[in-house]
Amino acid sequence: MTQPHRSSLPIPDVAIADEFWSPRRATVRAKTIPHQEDRLREGGQFAALRFEWRPDPDDDRERFPIFWESDVAKWIEAASYALASESDPKLDAAVDEAVALLAGAQQEDGYLNAYFTAIKPEGRFTDLRDAHELYCAGHLIEAGVAHFQATGKTSLLDVVRRYADLIDREFGPGGSCEGGYCGHQEIELALVKLFRATGERRYLDLSLRLIDNRGKAPFYFDEEARRRGTPGYFGGQGAVVRSDKRSREYNQSHAPVREQTEAVGHSVRAMYQYAAMADLALELGDAGLREACERLWRDLVDTKLYITGGIGADPSIEGFGPAFHLPDKDGYAETCAAIGLVFWAHRMMLLTGESTYVDVLERALYNGVLSGASADGTKYFYGNPLASDGSVERSDWFDCACCPPNLARLLTSLEEYVYVADEAGPTVNLYVAGWARFEYGGKRVLLNQESAYPWDGDVRITVEPEAALRVPLRLRLPEWTSAEPSVTVNGAAVPFAVDRGYAVVDRTWEPGDRVALSLPMHPVAVRADARVGAAHGKVALQKGPIVHCVEEVDNEAPVPHLVIGRGGEPVAEHRDGLDRITVAGLVDEPADGGLYRTGSTPVRPTEIRTVPYFAWANRGKGTMAVWVRETP
Amino acid sequence: MTQPHRSSLPIPDVAIADEFWSPRRATVRAKTIPHQEDRLREGGQFAALRFEWRPDPDDDRERFPIFWESDVAKWIEAASYALASESDPKLDAAVDEAVALLAGAQQEDGYLNAYFTAIKPEGRFTDLRDAHELYCAGHLIEAGVAHFQATGKTSLLDVVRRYADLIDREFGPGGSCEGGYCGHQEIELALVKLFRATGERRYLDLSLRLIDNRGKAPFYFDEEARRRGTPGYFGGQGAVVRSDKRSREYNQSHAPVREQTEAVGHSVRAMYQYAAMADLALELGDAGLREACERLWRDLVDTKLYITGGIGADPSIEGFGPAFHLPDKDGYAETCAAIGLVFWAHRMMLLTGESTYVDVLERALYNGVLSGASADGTKYFYGNPLASDGSVERSDWFDCACCPPNLARLLTSLEEYVYVADEAGPTVNLYVAGWARFEYGGKRVLLNQESAYPWDGDVRITVEPEAALRVPLRLRLPEWTSAEPSVTVNGAAVPFAVDRGYAVVDRTWEPGDRVALSLPMHPVAVRADARVGAAHGKVALQKGPIVHCVEEVDNEAPVPHLVIGRGGEPVAEHRDGLDRITVAGLVDEPADGGLYRTGSTPVRPTEIRTVPYFAWANRGKGTMAVWVRETP
Repeated sequence: MTQPHRSSLPIPDVAIADEFWSPRRATVRAKTIPHQEDRLREGGQFAALRFEWRPDPDDDRERFPIFWESDVAKWIEAASYALASESDPKLDAAVDEAVALLAGAQQEDGYLNAYFTAIKPEGRFTDLRDAHELYCAGHLIEAGVAHFQATGKTSLLDVVRRYADLIDREFGPGGSCEGGYCGHQEIELALVKLFRATGERRYLDLSLRLIDNRGKAPFYFDEEARRRGTPGYFGGQGAVVRSDKRSREYNQSHAPVREQTEAVGHSVRAMYQYAAMADLALELGDAGLREACERLWRDLVDTKLYITGGIGADPSIEGFGPAFHLPDKDGYAETCAAIGLVFWAHRMMLLTGESTYVDVLERALYNGVLSGASADGTKYFYGNPLASDGSVERSDWFDCACCPPNLARLLTSLEEYVYVADEAGPTVNLYVAGWARFEYGGKRVLLNQESAYPWDGDVRITVEPEAALRVPLRLRLPEWTSAEPSVTVNGAAVPFAVDRGYAVVDRTWEPGDRVALSLPMHPVAVRADARVGAAHGKVALQKGPIVHCVEEVDNEAPVPHLVIGRGGEPVAEHRDGLDRITVAGLVDEPADGGLYRTGSTPVRPTEIRTVPYFAWANRGKGTMAVWVRETP
Repeated sequence: MTQPHRSSLPIPDVAIADEFWSPRRATVRAKTIPHQEDRLREGGQFAALRFEWRPDPDDDRERFPIFWESDVAKWIEAASYALASESDPKLDAAVDEAVALLAGAQQEDGYLNAYFTAIKPEGRFTDLRDAHELYCAGHLIEAGVAHFQATGKTSLLDVVRRYADLIDREFGPGGSCEGGYCGHQEIELALVKLFRATGERRYLDLSLRLIDNRGKAPFYFDEEARRRGTPGYFGGQGAVVRSDKRSREYNQSHAPVREQTEAVGHSVRAMYQYAAMADLALELGDAGLREACERLWRDLVDTKLYITGGIGADPSIEGFGPAFHLPDKDGYAETCAAIGLVFWAHRMMLLTGESTYVDVLERALYNGVLSGASADGTKYFYGNPLASDGSVERSDWFDCACCPPNLARLLTSLEEYVYVADEAGPTVNLYVAGWARFEYGGKRVLLNQESAYPWDGDVRITVEPEAALRVPLRLRLPEWTSAEPSVTVNGAAVPFAVDRGYAVVDRTWEPGDRVALSLPMHPVAVRADARVGAAHGKVALQKGPIVHCVEEVDNEAPVPHLVIGRGGEPVAEHRDGLDRITVAGLVDEPADGGLYRTGSTPVRPTEIRTVPYFAWANRGKGTMAVWVRETP
């Protein structure tokens, strides 16, 4: 086993104090987490853990309880991250209550799933494909690790270890599920976290076993269906996926993972699987898993990635369509999938040390992830389409409530994505004001970041080692940079090497040294590969990491009638906390008079105005588009 | 009862001898009708009438036999029309054989449906919504009338009268289906034909009863389902339509027909219903039915009509989407629906005397109907999308084989649509070379038409009365005419009145008088109402009644990369039997290099070349579009 060379800093070693993320994270603490707690109490999730909940035969949402432990777990996980960066006795007590409920619901043998304990005990581990038990177990494990790391309490960690130990027995040699794996990947990456938190190697081995069982013939899901003699929990996935091939691709069990070459199927399942593969490749130095990850990454990034960092264009499977199938209005791009991409990209960066993965992480984070919540943090998008005919708005909640808590746990753990403790030197991946504490050569060194990112590319970093320290400081050079970046130290330009997308400033740092990184950031027009039909003859505007969109409310006509002129220079201004871009264009507005008519379409000049994509749909309904027509 | 003031000429009174339709009609005779006969023999339809066919439990096409009498009937109908205009002893014998099979399959009481006789006798008339018995009965009646009118034989007419008499009893007062009506309208218009052929008023009354029963509460389809106690033949229409409202709209039983205001649901069902309503309005002078027809027509023509005359944009219901929902690539536009529109439009013209209905008939006929078959008449489109990503091609046949025989029966009866015997004077609706025999004031008058229509708008008509005859000659002025039309008689310009879209030349005709109508016909650019999203920023090219499309095979780049320039004059030339339009434009072809990139899209000038839409997909697969991007 090789040791990892890179790791995230622990949350308590990072502070985020900026004007972009801090208010959003405060909203998650003040509104989202309490709101989600209310939902768990009202929705039956807590009652289910007391075995007080019974299905209502008239309610066709009867199937959702099979996700309920994951709802509770993601809430505990988000709350734990929040507690890691700021104490909150009331929240701490609420988490303790939920942990006690989980501990009370755990069976003698370690099993922990209310539905398959109270309602359908004969069904335990008989429908791995659809019943989501290991998916829930994975979220419980992630919550147990987060809760332990945030509070030092082992109350939930002990519970999830006992459950993981049961799973290890059942899925081990001679166990009732030998050769099995879950239909919704999640536990694989959770077990790596559990290994890291406990040092228990068998959790890592179990994760690898689940990963390597996947997709091998004879197919486990066929075998369990034969043994069970029923089509399964969801009636055999119903209309979602009809053919064996599509059905297997849906949960990425169509081939052994090491042989998989294309991102297919349900995109959240795919992201969690690929993230676990990257984790295992890093922990085990497993070249086969690393190569598979790199192949899958290229397929996704070259052919299936929205400009917003959204993924999974096909709503019918909540997953990937064919290459270059990236429809705007009718696309999907689930919030959870973009979050999953952040998870995977982060692990790929840890595995390879290459900043290109952070470029994609940043694209997803500032665009397709953030669009998932309203400005006030109380409404959510499940899908994040790149255009709207005016009918789209965020919802309060969902029966299948995966996205809101996923967003909460990402934002409360954002610390993990900003810096990397790399053997090669302290590394800044995201430009987020605040500080971070590293240790190199036995000496502590503090970095204090200031910037108005993502609105401005000037970043100032004060380096504060305990004592003079020679270590290369690694600063990510984002792909979007529109001209050559520059670095000064204490006001003087310094040369720097570029290594795998990072500016490397290698010198002996004295306390108080001031580094200034200047990333030229101007609005630019972006065009898509010719094979992306939805972007044909269209252009998107972007400034820095922020992808913009055009909303009807800011413009003189519904968005489909706007045409961006060629050669006009887009200009950005900052107003009410957001960048706006203005560019010269035309309005075409065919007069009415019958469905079809001859005669030309009148056009008149206009100014086309944008807002950041993540901020759309906060001012009522209206047409919207990221890809806007352009004068050929 | 008011007498109809207008009627089609009988097929034997019209001859079609032109370069456009004659070869296509010859193909139907020589290939399509024999091909269809083979299909009926091989497919089990004939065997079923001998009660020799049994369902194969492993074949999920087991449900198609419920349409089989309609397959046989449409073939007999087309063959009969063919026999009406040209004798063919072999075909006549084949038709006699089919008629004998039908007569042999008829039950003592007149019932005639092989499936519900041999396979499911307990099901007779218990699932009017889905089992298609009256739909098949309607087609049998249409076939019986056509066969009688073509051959003078009453062999099939007698059979269908006995069946109609049974239906009259069962659906009459005290009958087992009192208050009922069919889930797939068709018999209503067939019964009007049967009334006209036999003079039996009760067939007209039965048609009116079926029309007026429809959509009245309590809903018959709910009542029969309650009585039956099962979800019905197709399992309650399965996934097609889930809500009661959508389910009722699907077959236009959501409201009494006189109160219906919008074209909704399955579009073939809608067309057949509306056609019957127009027939009844004409026969009965029923103002309520006429007003309903006019309302529904406006809704369809103003909001739901493709430029090709196709209708029914939503493939999931083979029917209408919301107003202005006319997607190109993902649309539907079933061939049968466009044919149904021809039927309805023709009857609306007979009802009102207005040529606007023929404008729509002509649009459908030359575009969305004709595109349904390949140039060689052996392959068929079920749906007729207005754009293709290169994956679309015609098929040999369909399990649900409604479209090919529908096209055959329309083309073999095209005579009925060319002229109208109007009290106000002989009327030319379509410009098709050949002759027609009218009678006015006790004198016969022959019209002999010559033209190269639809490629040229110059039409020459020789008027041959038995003796000098004063009667107004009515010539349709198509809506597409791009400049003022002119009329000469014997070489001298004559003034003409315009009445409801017809040029009226009122004079005393001498034998051999030569009328020349000049309809200026140039290629024009057509744009759609601003609310048609698929046509946004796009333009279609049309010349005369022919809507053109751009196919990849004729152009320098895949169609989505072509942009028609503003101000360029489209120019037409005639080559290999088809018009082609050429217009100046641009190719934009973004270089590859990652999914997203900055930098402008290179464009270069090109000539964009079209073919008539009906002729597309005859030269292999490739991209195609009717709506082509236009320089703003």
